Amino acid sequence: MPDDPQAQNDLSAAMTALGRNARAAAAELSRAPTGARNAALLAAAEALVDRERAILAANAKDVKAARAEGQDDAFIDRLLLTAKVVEEMALGLRQVAALPDPVGEVTDLAFRPSGIQVGRMRVPLGVVAIIYESRPDVTADAGALCLKSGNACILRGGSEALNSNQAIAACLAVGLKAAGLPEAAIQLVATTDRQAVGALVTMDQYIDMVVPRGGKGLIERVAKEARVPVLKHLDGVCHVYVDDGADLGKALRIADNAKTQRYGTCNTMETLLVAVAEAKAFLPEIAKVFVAKGVEMRADPGAMAFLPKGAAIAATEEDWYAEYLAPVIAIRVVAGLDEAIAHIAKYGSQHTDAIVTEHGPRARRFLREVDSASVMVNASTRFADGFEYGLGAEIGISTNKLHARGPVGLEGLTSQKWIVLGDGHVRS
Amino acid sequence: MPDDPQAQNDLSAAMTALGRNARAAAAELSRAPTGARNAALLAAAEALVDRERAILAANAKDVKAARAEGQDDAFIDRLLLTAKVVEEMALGLRQVAALPDPVGEVTDLAFRPSGIQVGRMRVPLGVVAIIYESRPDVTADAGALCLKSGNACILRGGSEALNSNQAIAACLAVGLKAAGLPEAAIQLVATTDRQAVGALVTMDQYIDMVVPRGGKGLIERVAKEARVPVLKHLDGVCHVYVDDGADLGKALRIADNAKTQRYGTCNTMETLLVAVAEAKAFLPEIAKVFVAKGVEMRADPGAMAFLPKGAAIAATEEDWYAEYLAPVIAIRVVAGLDEAIAHIAKYGSQHTDAIVTEHGPRARRFLREVDSASVMVNASTRFADGFEYGLGAEIGISTNKLHARGPVGLEGLTSQKWIVLGDGHVRS
Repeated sequence: MPDDPQAQNDLSAAMTALGRNARAAAAELSRAPTGARNAALLAAAEALVDRERAILAANAKDVKAARAEGQDDAFIDRLLLTAKVVEEMALGLRQVAALPDPVGEVTDLAFRPSGIQVGRMRVPLGVVAIIYESRPDVTADAGALCLKSGNACILRGGSEALNSNQAIAACLAVGLKAAGLPEAAIQLVATTDRQAVGALVTMDQYIDMVVPRGGKGLIERVAKEARVPVLKHLDGVCHVYVDDGADLGKALRIADNAKTQRYGTCNTMETLLVAVAEAKAFLPEIAKVFVAKGVEMRADPGAMAFLPKGAAIAATEEDWYAEYLAPVIAIRVVAGLDEAIAHIAKYGSQHTDAIVTEHGPRARRFLREVDSASVMVNASTRFADGFEYGLGAEIGISTNKLHARGPVGLEGLTSQKWIVLGDGHVRS
Repeated sequence: MPDDPQAQNDLSAAMTALGRNARAAAAELSRAPTGARNAALLAAAEALVDRERAILAANAKDVKAARAEGQDDAFIDRLLLTAKVVEEMALGLRQVAALPDPVGEVTDLAFRPSGIQVGRMRVPLGVVAIIYESRPDVTADAGALCLKSGNACILRGGSEALNSNQAIAACLAVGLKAAGLPEAAIQLVATTDRQAVGALVTMDQYIDMVVPRGGKGLIERVAKEARVPVLKHLDGVCHVYVDDGADLGKALRIADNAKTQRYGTCNTMETLLVAVAEAKAFLPEIAKVFVAKGVEMRADPGAMAFLPKGAAIAATEEDWYAEYLAPVIAIRVVAGLDEAIAHIAKYGSQHTDAIVTEHGPRARRFLREVDSASVMVNASTRFADGFEYGLGAEIGISTNKLHARGPVGLEGLTSQKWIVLGDGHVRS
């Protein structure tokens, strides 16, 4: 709580106004035809290109201030916009415009014995709040996905990117205006007051879903304080299990790709499980790859026995829970499928887990019994991604079990209502 | 908080044990074939029939105690079991056994440009807690739906029905045992301590969803305290709008049925909206029906002008928000579709709303723009029901916007995970 009750009141009034405006805009958007929403996206893309210079100037201010504050290179890297990034944002808006409209899709419409027809219609959620860190390109991306799916949105980016975000949001506003849509369809929280996040995530009368995008600290804070449903992604402790009789060529390719293609992503493998029957043949080969690429191996005694001397250190209990997001991997030898499934159930994060196997029935069991958002057979965990899954866009990856699991595209920003068609039908 | 810290510790330990056992049972259930779950349901049905006498004896104890406590007739009515109710419970279990298994259904499996196949598999949520009042038949019904959908469940019925619930739960346990499934798949909370509910709805490490079934007080309490997602149904302020040029024969039939077929259900119409163009012809006719059936009318000035003198009283602002659940109706004359939609958006509860119209484009607008769980054209709001919609069962009606809206059947007790099939595919 801030010390100044007046400041608290002002913030609260400002947030309520944002919420109320968003709710009104959502009602208008729910009536807006596909064409208007697409026109707004295309006009916003044009505005981004036209105003590139102004956007870069605003960004330069943010970068300068962040440097003065002593932010590190990685932070500046995420904050920095270039002409190329602005072009990519514009391209992103055009791609979203080209996606099929999820809103209004009617499915499963069928006659019932009573004579009524019953079906489902896909509709926007209403108002979505996106809370993110100092990555200004998220402003364009998240705003576009919400608009496309007919949702009003409230964007709260990192305070260090406020000038950049305002410059980008202004382009989105140009697009909305050009298409005759309410400007409150996409609102940026203008204050840098950290209390704003707490206010947003508790306004359940105005906001239907919150999507935090950023590091674990941000997501945990939002999840803890929220009274609004949160589409959240916590840990990504992903496993690859190399089964008895696996094709070791495939296993090598998949384990290498799942670990080393990118170290910092949530769908990167963190623990490699190997059936004891394959340990002797497989572990020395994969160790060569990891050693060559500088991946630190932390092994249980069963795995250690088959790794080159000194190549690995002993894993501790914590290693099985760890999401390294770094060139480090935990390796364990298991008796077989049952032990692999039990390990994943105990230590995993229900994100993405893969089996490498040639054995049909064991693949079938793994698919059924591993309770993760993405379960894979003979494929790299790195495929867990909205674009790879054909969603055309990705608002985030969910480790929730309700509403949406795994990569979430436009569909995750909608729900289905029931529609009933009759001709004077009554219930008897 | 109870005064006795020891009692609090005991309760907490007992609830944790329930949660842990449920989680373990859920893992077993996720592997159990359809046949085993159905066999358990059929054996439980048989046990209900076999043990009818013991169930009625347990129920007689509960009824006697409730009478001694001075509970009213309506309460006793809900609590009372008869031979017929026991038979119906058994029949209900057999019907659930006969429903198609939602678990494991794979949809949308398709090849992606990378060569992987991506699809979705329907899976149980895990552990579901059902919190209900003193209606012992819910024990059989809710337990059956959770079991069928592969979820372990924790049942917390009203404390006045504890003996009855235990007798019924014992039959479900017989079924589970006969089918070789873990008895902890269906657990009944044995304590009558009211703190148990608070403990249940905050155990997010063990429970994936809470379904409160009962009056508004119960649901509000659960929603307020819960840290676990709640499948909830709050108000049902349902509207029928009679449009310009509606077929007044259909309008009369639908308004009559929507209001008077049953007064106490959530899908009963509470407010009738009439386009001004039809007010003169329609209102005197529907008034005859309502007068004949003893339905109290509360009208705005526009409607009052067309109702027989003294037949209605003046509606107040509160009437438009009211869920009467009684032979009372609010009636308002509106200019047309826009005003009707605006009224529903302002005063409605996003449950079920219907338009009576012969006009295609206005029907299309109503379907699209009314943001309710069920939106109907020329049909009675009373159709908003899992059985009428063909779900085969109903765990509840949801006014949530995420996960499941409207009548919720077995599908609402499941979610979809992604499955990916490859043959050594890696991401490039």
